[in-house]
Order: sequence, then C-alpha cells, then structure tokens
Amino acid sequence: MSPSELLQSLQFRYATKQFDPAATISNDAWSVLEQSLHLAPSSFGLQPWKFLVIDSPAIRSELRECSWNQGQVTDAARLVVFAARTDLTDVDIDRFIQCLATAQGKTPTDLSGYRDIVHGFANRMTPEVRHAWNIRQTYIALGQLMASAAAIGIDTCPLEGIDAAAYDKILGLAESGYATAVACAIGYRSSDDKYAEMPKARFPITEVIEHR
Amino acid sequence: MSPSELLQSLQFRYATKQFDPAATISNDAWSVLEQSLHLAPSSFGLQPWKFLVIDSPAIRSELRECSWNQGQVTDAARLVVFAARTDLTDVDIDRFIQCLATAQGKTPTDLSGYRDIVHGFANRMTPEVRHAWNIRQTYIALGQLMASAAAIGIDTCPLEGIDAAAYDKILGLAESGYATAVACAIGYRSSDDKYAEMPKARFPITEVIEHR
Repeated sequence: MSPSELLQSLQFRYATKQFDPAATISNDAWSVLEQSLHLAPSSFGLQPWKFLVIDSPAIRSELRECSWNQGQVTDAARLVVFAARTDLTDVDIDRFIQCLATAQGKTPTDLSGYRDIVHGFANRMTPEVRHAWNIRQTYIALGQLMASAAAIGIDTCPLEGIDAAAYDKILGLAESGYATAVACAIGYRSSDDKYAEMPKARFPITEVIEHR
Repeated sequence: MSPSELLQSLQFRYATKQFDPAATISNDAWSVLEQSLHLAPSSFGLQPWKFLVIDSPAIRSELRECSWNQGQVTDAARLVVFAARTDLTDVDIDRFIQCLATAQGKTPTDLSGYRDIVHGFANRMTPEVRHAWNIRQTYIALGQLMASAAAIGIDTCPLEGIDAAAYDKILGLAESGYATAVACAIGYRSSDDKYAEMPKARFPITEVIEHR
C-alpha cells in the first residue's frame, strides 16, 4: 500500500452510526480481521485478553439493551467484545513464557531471564494497576483492528458507552478472570448514514502534534 | 489493499529491537503517519492527547536514559511520545464542541445536546478515572499508528518500559495538563535484528478468540 492509499483508508474510516444490516463480511476478509486481533501487539507479547465474537442475534439483542440501545450492536455484520485479564499472575506469565519457548524452539528455562524481567515488571503493580494495564493493551488491539478494517474497506464503530458489568454477566465472564473492556461493531455502512459524509472534526494538527 | 495483503502487513509487523540508524522515512510517508495520529479515533472524538515527535538527538539521548537504555529511542528514524490529558474538564469539552461545530458549519448551541451527553459522561468520573480514560485513548492511536506503518512497510516498536515522570520533566510537560502515556519508535529494521526472523509467539487462536 502506498502512503497515499493509506491516507485514503484513514480518511475512509469514521465511527459508523448506521450499519447495513444485510451486508455481510466475506469469510476471507473476516478471517484476516481475526488475525488482526490474534497478531495484535501487546506489552511483552503477553496477550492479556480474549476477543469474543458475538454470533448469536439473541445475545446481541441483550447486549444492545446494555449499550444505550445503540443500533450498531445488533445491525453490524460482526460484533467483537474485548475482554481484558482482570489480573496478571505468575501463572499467566509462565503460560506466556511456555508459548514463547514453543514458538522459538526453546525451553522455558532458556527464557528464564526474560521471565524474571516480566515477573519483576508485573509484581511491582497492584492487581488493580495490572488490570488497567491489561485494559490498555486491548485498546492497542482495538486501534489495530479499526485501521486494518479500513485498509480493506470495512467499517467499524468503537463502543465504549456500554455497561461492562452487564456485558460480563450476559457473556458469562463473571468467574472467568476476564472482564469486558470495550467493544467494536464491524461491517458496512448503510447508505442512509448521514455521518459518513460529515467532515471529520480535528483540532489543528499543529496543536496536536508538536516537535521537540 | 486486499485481505491477503493486509495479512502480509500484519505478519510483517514485529516489535523492532534494532533499527537501522541510517534509514530515514520519506517526507511523504511521514506526513501520512502524522495523519494517522491526527485522524485516530477517540471516545466522542475528544482527542484528549498530544503527540510529541522528538527530532532533537540530544533530547532522544536524554530520554533513552529513562527508557532502560533501549536503543530504539535513539536509533529509529522517528520517536513519538504519546501524552494524555491529565483530566477532561468542561473547558476541554467545550473546546471540542467548538471544533466539531466549525467542522460541521454549525454553532456550539446547535450541538448543546451532544455537549450535555459528553459532559454527563465525563462528570460521572473522578479526575483519576478521566486521566486513565484519556490514556486508553492514546493506545487506540498507538495501535492505529503501528498498523498504519506496517501497511506501508515501516517498522515500529512500542515503548511502555519508560519512566513517564522523567519523560514529562525532560519534555517540559510538568505544568501542561498532559502527561506521558507511552512512546513508539518508528523507522526501518536493521539487517542485524535477529528478532525480525523469529516466529511470532501467540496463544492458539481458538483460546484467544471465542464465539458466542
């Protein structure tokens, strides 16, 4: 992709208010968007998250009631709920170190130096701070997902105005060690969405980007 | 960009450890990456952030000392520090509403309903929670920036292991109402970076992505 094509895709993206409920995402495109989530960067590579793709129309209706009745929750082709680990324990870290060792053809013992660094970093935080840290990681995945979708002409709407506790209950996350952080609707804009044509509102770039 | 080209760009991306210090980013490409920051999505469109591009080698050396001596801080073509608003006051919201009104050819009074919703949302939070909310928004911009760079063949490394308070001091943010959240090095990988060839370590996709 050239820089000017990238610019077009950045300008194409907007927070879609009205999705076309009849428009579906091809399996090819959806599978790559799942890879965008799966391959998203996270601190130390820890992946302190789960991504719940809500296929059930009944569950989506229930979630809509806990989302200020936003139509995107039911009307978009896909809905992803980003859940963050509520803590980051030694068990989580060792599970990741095992995953890293397997990928690199090593043993966890080979990676004990890295393991100690990650343990040290995590253990300096309280459980609440670790949860907040994990939530921030899900926002990296959210940003990557929205940019990825735009690059292939697919629309998104991030959904922060949701009742996360109610989502947890509906999705059965209560005792899972994961909690809803944010959600994202993904699909194709309706031709009726007047927001698609509105100019973007941004502060002057010279106020937002400073050089030092 | 096709889904398979997107997949290639997602696989191209990795947390670059060694940048080629001689490789610069073309003005065309850099200007679009600045647009990726400028156009990044944020809650309500509030843009509670500043992006500091650190051009000065002297400042980058100082920052490196507060970044566990990570070479990316000085060696990458570009370094961006993501600073979040430390609060979100009525003044911030009204400034945004003015920006939105200007973009849409309206007056702030025309948008008073929207203004009240945003005020209500922000005023239910404590200042600390508003700061945390703003920090999360900068992670959306970080995710979009890394995905954007990869789409045009440019490497990145997110930098969370930094002494944010020391950054604030060096960058003169102390009394500015903004505070360092995270940073990102951007440039081209060195041919010596052995991490470029390592397989990605990811939990099985069926563990990370669940369908409901």
